[in-house]
Amino acid sequence: MPLRTPVVPVILAAGQGTRMRSSRPKVLQPLAEKPLLLHVLETAARLGGTEPVVVVGHGAGQVRSVLDPACRSVIQEPQLGTGHALLTALPQVDNGATILVLYGDVPLVRAETLCALLEIMPADGLALLTVTLPNPTGYGRILRDDEGRVTGIVEERDADAAQRALREVNTGIMAAPRARWVDWLSQIGCDNAQGEYYLTDCVSLAAAEGVPIAVHCCPDIEETRGVNDRIQLADAERVLRARRADDLMRAGAILRNPDCLEIRGNVTVGTDVQIDTGVVLEGDIVLGKGVRIGPHCTLRNCSVGDDAEVLAHSVLDGAKVGAGCRIGPFARLRPGTDLSAGVHVGNYVEIKNTRVGTDSKINHLSYIGDAQIGNGVNIGAGTITCNYDGVYKHKTQIADGAFIGSNTALVAPVRIGEHATVGAGSVITRDAPDHKLTLARARQTTVDGWQPPTKLKE
Amino acid sequence: MPLRTPVVPVILAAGQGTRMRSSRPKVLQPLAEKPLLLHVLETAARLGGTEPVVVVGHGAGQVRSVLDPACRSVIQEPQLGTGHALLTALPQVDNGATILVLYGDVPLVRAETLCALLEIMPADGLALLTVTLPNPTGYGRILRDDEGRVTGIVEERDADAAQRALREVNTGIMAAPRARWVDWLSQIGCDNAQGEYYLTDCVSLAAAEGVPIAVHCCPDIEETRGVNDRIQLADAERVLRARRADDLMRAGAILRNPDCLEIRGNVTVGTDVQIDTGVVLEGDIVLGKGVRIGPHCTLRNCSVGDDAEVLAHSVLDGAKVGAGCRIGPFARLRPGTDLSAGVHVGNYVEIKNTRVGTDSKINHLSYIGDAQIGNGVNIGAGTITCNYDGVYKHKTQIADGAFIGSNTALVAPVRIGEHATVGAGSVITRDAPDHKLTLARARQTTVDGWQPPTKLKE
Amino acid sequence: MPLRTPVVPVILAAGQGTRMRSSRPKVLQPLAEKPLLLHVLETAARLGGTEPVVVVGHGAGQVRSVLDPACRSVIQEPQLGTGHALLTALPQVDNGATILVLYGDVPLVRAETLCALLEIMPADGLALLTVTLPNPTGYGRILRDDEGRVTGIVEERDADAAQRALREVNTGIMAAPRARWVDWLSQIGCDNAQGEYYLTDCVSLAAAEGVPIAVHCCPDIEETRGVNDRIQLADAERVLRARRADDLMRAGAILRNPDCLEIRGNVTVGTDVQIDTGVVLEGDIVLGKGVRIGPHCTLRNCSVGDDAEVLAHSVLDGAKVGAGCRIGPFARLRPGTDLSAGVHVGNYVEIKNTRVGTDSKINHLSYIGDAQIGNGVNIGAGTITCNYDGVYKHKTQIADGAFIGSNTALVAPVRIGEHATVGAGSVITRDAPDHKLTLARARQTTVDGWQPPTKLKE
Repeated sequence: MPLRTPVVPVILAAGQGTRMRSSRPKVLQPLAEKPLLLHVLETAARLGGTEPVVVVGHGAGQVRSVLDPACRSVIQEPQLGTGHALLTALPQVDNGATILVLYGDVPLVRAETLCALLEIMPADGLALLTVTLPNPTGYGRILRDDEGRVTGIVEERDADAAQRALREVNTGIMAAPRARWVDWLSQIGCDNAQGEYYLTDCVSLAAAEGVPIAVHCCPDIEETRGVNDRIQLADAERVLRARRADDLMRAGAILRNPDCLEIRGNVTVGTDVQIDTGVVLEGDIVLGKGVRIGPHCTLRNCSVGDDAEVLAHSVLDGAKVGAGCRIGPFARLRPGTDLSAGVHVGNYVEIKNTRVGTDSKINHLSYIGDAQIGNGVNIGAGTITCNYDGVYKHKTQIADGAFIGSNTALVAPVRIGEHATVGAGSVITRDAPDHKLTLARARQTTVDGWQPPTKLKE
Repeated sequence: MPLRTPVVPVILAAGQGTRMRSSRPKVLQPLAEKPLLLHVLETAARLGGTEPVVVVGHGAGQVRSVLDPACRSVIQEPQLGTGHALLTALPQVDNGATILVLYGDVPLVRAETLCALLEIMPADGLALLTVTLPNPTGYGRILRDDEGRVTGIVEERDADAAQRALREVNTGIMAAPRARWVDWLSQIGCDNAQGEYYLTDCVSLAAAEGVPIAVHCCPDIEETRGVNDRIQLADAERVLRARRADDLMRAGAILRNPDCLEIRGNVTVGTDVQIDTGVVLEGDIVLGKGVRIGPHCTLRNCSVGDDAEVLAHSVLDGAKVGAGCRIGPFARLRPGTDLSAGVHVGNYVEIKNTRVGTDSKINHLSYIGDAQIGNGVNIGAGTITCNYDGVYKHKTQIADGAFIGSNTALVAPVRIGEHATVGAGSVITRDAPDHKLTLARARQTTVDGWQPPTKLKE
Repeated sequence: MPLRTPVVPVILAAGQGTRMRSSRPKVLQPLAEKPLLLHVLETAARLGGTEPVVVVGHGAGQVRSVLDPACRSVIQEPQLGTGHALLTALPQVDNGATILVLYGDVPLVRAETLCALLEIMPADGLALLTVTLPNPTGYGRILRDDEGRVTGIVEERDADAAQRALREVNTGIMAAPRARWVDWLSQIGCDNAQGEYYLTDCVSLAAAEGVPIAVHCCPDIEETRGVNDRIQLADAERVLRARRADDLMRAGAILRNPDCLEIRGNVTVGTDVQIDTGVVLEGDIVLGKGVRIGPHCTLRNCSVGDDAEVLAHSVLDGAKVGAGCRIGPFARLRPGTDLSAGVHVGNYVEIKNTRVGTDSKINHLSYIGDAQIGNGVNIGAGTITCNYDGVYKHKTQIADGAFIGSNTALVAPVRIGEHATVGAGSVITRDAPDHKLTLARARQTTVDGWQPPTKLKE
């Protein structure tokens, strides 16, 4: 989205957010796995303007620690209101630039909305983003004269009955040339209950000076909501969830119950993907065509190949799942799991840091860690790779076509040969040769004269 | 619901549904596990009329493959609009019949609504189903004269301001004698932007001819929604979910959170059944009285006996659970599982193709496949039936009262006798006799002078 | 909340609740794990008045069985209406007391609302709780004279068109001095279709007698809803869920999806607690600061220490989890589990009746029951404590620093010494000494000339 003038977003992020009742500053509260402030920064980046300036204050160190090192920030100390915050940022902004004021706690505003605002900005005037609310209580109302020109903003507490009935309110998001802000900010006072300098006073100043004021009324009332407490945070999460669910459905995914689907990362889907209820998607997720994700699965930083199926209650993190695989239910794939096409991983199976070849099966109750598994391998129920000796991790190798009997412990480092068979219940401590049966098994005996335990008499 | 005249439902199902972005035709998109079209066919079947005629077109082969072989279908090729679609179906309909026009992508209309429509149909006239929408944008408005008689339908794009303010709209669902349709369809043209023949033009024709037109306004605005994209598909799923949840609650079930309950199949409940949040019910499900289903369970084609309890995160498919059983959490019952009364199946236990006798217990971390288990058997933690030799599956038999120690592998085919005890950690490859202790266990030794692994110095 | 006069809540709880289609009386239907009636009793207790009187009838024995033994109850038999119910209770109430009439099937009314009602009660008059509904259909409308004074209540069926348009309705909740009730109840008749005595008739009597009537209109329309069927029961659960979620968020918790969170017990949270979607909280739950509960976990009667994390799909019941522990995914902690700080319990691990020392790890596929585990212990995958001999349960002791190899069965009673190592795949039946390697393992052999099973030719 190219802009006609150099635009510098200034993001106010100095507030404490006492109502969050948190040890973290407000703008670091998590929305879809990311601090609120980063949502605003991402939106600002989509404008294609200059690097933004972030005004930090409360918890400045914490806030700065999440910023890109290249991101400019200034400290507002003490915090004397939004007008004062912008004043603090002015030295960071070039003379000829347009300043777009954004807020670290208003994370849902869309880049499209901001572009629309910038587009209507008069060359030497002010552009103001407003929104018309069903219930405007608590917000500053937009005052207009008979010809519809904005004359100012009146706060709730100062409004008369007629003004309170107005439903168009200020969002706080505005744009004007830097020079204008310099002028206005030098004039506004702090003669109010809080003793603070308010950015909104600039609007009245502009109106009084006859500076042209253009208004863009945001059509989506969810975009401009501020997030001041945990209830509003949950509301924002709900809005974002719905927005992302709609995007996925427009991309062709079947979402069985969008209200019970958590989309927190970047999800790419092929055609005819189905995602069931209760699924949680985090980080970067790529789902091939025809993929089906069963109920209550959680996926984080995964790719799943075409027509693969992930059954209920599976937890995948940092895994690569090949085409046509069938995973779960109750499977857990940990980072470094790389499954070739057609692999089956069944219930109560944990895999980490392991490559599994084509069409291999690990169907029940197994722990496979730090292994390399060939093609067409069958791993019996209850197989465990003993990869840890208490100090170091060791590797297990299982070659193509091997058959591992149930309840087997493979004490790494160890190699099971091609088409080797390991007998059920074995503890394998040395390499098993190709094509042969290897086992470690005690002789079965029946004890004569044995008496089962019985209840003691009292 | 007996009808006074022979009624033939004609179901229009030729559309592609580009907005679905799917490789499947629109009417095959899944709603509650079933293609949209099958919902309409089921509703049509409940009318008790003649077999319907389905008009197929895009993906005709795919669509026909889901139809009952007895179901009549005709191919509309090319697709020249709804009027043309009905024309294509006319040869399949007897002369004296009434034709009820339905849509393969309007899956939620109730049989009761259609009966009401058919009941008001004038003997030689047209019955039209309408609906009054809060926001009618995009729909054809119903035009009426001063006496309330329908005079036609005006499409959004042709409507003037007054007409656009009308909120009663056409649903497309109509009924009239076959002869009337023959007459009207011969007169309508395709003089419009799309060059298509529209069924709605018949309404104006009927009005112009003075044919009596009766209108039934559908009281439930959800019923007549079309499903054109994945967002509307999710909406339809939500409506169906709520409808079925209400039905279950009216039947006496306690649903802890109906919005988070997926009812996709046919569910029958006894009194005082409780179903917790996140549960998914598919296929045919019968829950006896007092049954409790814990959070996040998924059941498919199962019956659960009186007072049985299924604890959180259990996955049951094709299983029969006896009265008073306690299953889960984290249990998985696969097809062919048949549990007698009072059986306990605990966490991380998978059972398939196995009958379990009364009061037996399989409480922890086991895989039981292709087995026959008697009454009063206790299966220890980590027990695995090694039913697969790489080529064939074999059976395990465990007789009444047997006690299987933990971490035991039962290598099938094998039989554990009545009241036999198997020692923990055994691999049992031959039958174990009744009443005796059988084990296969290595001698415990302590290694003197052994050094644990230590961190290597760098 | 101190009250100026002695107040005796009389709770009407005699109804059958046929529409519940249940074997239990209506007031015993479960809301957030508790019978409806107990919610009303808890609210009544918060008023700080005298012990309430509960009027029981249908299922009197069942209802009384859930009451505190100290709670007074009277049987209404036969049930001749609400007026008759209160009459039945009068002998239990002292002469000078104020009677507050409550309902066992109106469970959501807040103590604050009742206090507000009692505060406006005229010394010798009637206080009436009303509510203004968007759709008042079915409820008794409040009639007022020109000066706004209540003149009576008209039931839906007796109301004329103007009266039906009134939206302020009777909730049935009222307070008046006992003497007033004695007077009014002696006058009301049962000359109506049901032949019952209605408490609402007292309002008209009071008005006719010129007794002062004060009205408190409940601002929250959810509070005064009656629960008559399972749909209304689910609605009440939804309201309670939302109310408790809001409370938790106001206390500082981050709830990822409040609509998919079941809060059924008493939950206490430290700062910056995060609770993910699909979580179920029952009983008494204490979550320390920074605790994170992953998706789809269920917790019942648990405490979780500071900064501990419970990963997806874990089920905790009666467990104590120390600071910094990491539990799950797919972990199950049963009653008597007591984990010290820094313990890791991983996937497919069940623990019951066991104390685990600091920084010990049980990461995979294990069953640990009736054990005492020291500090810094590492329990390998597939470890099972064989605590049950078929008759008795026995204890397993594992001392500090021990290392248990994978797939080990510990046959209790048994003790593993300090810094002892147990070799993988062992069955340990006798104590293992400190600092040494103990194992029970068969010799690994490879079978020459062995042929794998092959498909039989037909």
